[in-house]
Amino acid sequence: MTEVATARRSRITPEREAELYEAVLDLLREVGYDALTMDAVAARTRSSKATLYRQWGGKAELVAKAVRHTKNGAGVSGIDTGSLKGDLHALTRRSDDSKMEQNSALMRGLAMAIHGNPDLLKAFKEYLIEPEMAEFRTVVQRAIDRGEVRPDCPAIDYMMHMMIGGFAARSMLDEQPPTQAFLLSYIDAVVLPALGNQGD
Amino acid sequence: MTEVATARRSRITPEREAELYEAVLDLLREVGYDALTMDAVAARTRSSKATLYRQWGGKAELVAKAVRHTKNGAGVSGIDTGSLKGDLHALTRRSDDSKMEQNSALMRGLAMAIHGNPDLLKAFKEYLIEPEMAEFRTVVQRAIDRGEVRPDCPAIDYMMHMMIGGFAARSMLDEQPPTQAFLLSYIDAVVLPALGNQGD
Repeated sequence: MTEVATARRSRITPEREAELYEAVLDLLREVGYDALTMDAVAARTRSSKATLYRQWGGKAELVAKAVRHTKNGAGVSGIDTGSLKGDLHALTRRSDDSKMEQNSALMRGLAMAIHGNPDLLKAFKEYLIEPEMAEFRTVVQRAIDRGEVRPDCPAIDYMMHMMIGGFAARSMLDEQPPTQAFLLSYIDAVVLPALGNQGD
Repeated sequence: MTEVATARRSRITPEREAELYEAVLDLLREVGYDALTMDAVAARTRSSKATLYRQWGGKAELVAKAVRHTKNGAGVSGIDTGSLKGDLHALTRRSDDSKMEQNSALMRGLAMAIHGNPDLLKAFKEYLIEPEMAEFRTVVQRAIDRGEVRPDCPAIDYMMHMMIGGFAARSMLDEQPPTQAFLLSYIDAVVLPALGNQGD
């Protein structure tokens, strides 16, 4: 098993991995999830389908990891500003506006596909939603430890609903992609007060 | 002009209108917005295309009004409980769980279509989003007049973002359609505290 795992890891460089993810995202934008085939990914990236399956297991996992790749993957490890407001703002500032706009278009398409594809939903939860929820939990737990948020505050369970809602509703209601400025103002107006924190 | 307007109104009974909207919603569920044609609506409802265009102007308007029709259309006119919490709960209770589930599936499909169809976005804003925003404004204004919410509370501008977010994020994060119980708890945990109102 160790030998296989090593072989897997060594088979692909980070540069090559990034190149593959970019090609997957391009194809996603061009044809959408349902019409995307592993054959097309293999052709576009000049890889063998066998390699793709060995490395990623399948289309859903490959797509979820490609989307995760756009998120920098820095995690909260580098973020610890000393206040909840500071941490939430810093998390938001990791994606610039053009990245957010791309992401918003991509997520719209995938949100549809998720409902017809349990594999995609599973991969999304595992590689995108769960890690993001864990980030927010870390940030909120620190705020609880500092006494900024009460541990029994009911809004804690709705962190992701609030954030996704702001992001998703923005393009529909305001006909604009979400921007950093919008999300920062939404965090101050909605998320912090709901958590009983005025951001001071 | 008056004569034309009268002729328009008299051309169709409320029962016939409801029947037409139901057929449009059935077709939407079956084929989606992009593949829906006025020919198919005419065939399914045994009407002439000319009548459909005269009555509704086009596909986008017909679809938006059909969706609005599922919302009972009671408005806030009958709702005035004397507290913000009471009013928001009463608005939520207008749709039962099976209606919310149907609505959620429908809206998911239409949210995608909106981005490729400016006509549909325009009709949605006019017949669905604006009226709903007006309802929330009425309810919040009453709360301001009673002194329950400060008139300069920044979350007021994000009422719809909060509500749509809760609704949309529910099915994605929790793999369940939004239910009354979920929305009532979300209102208490997020919306009221963001508005500086603890619901007492």
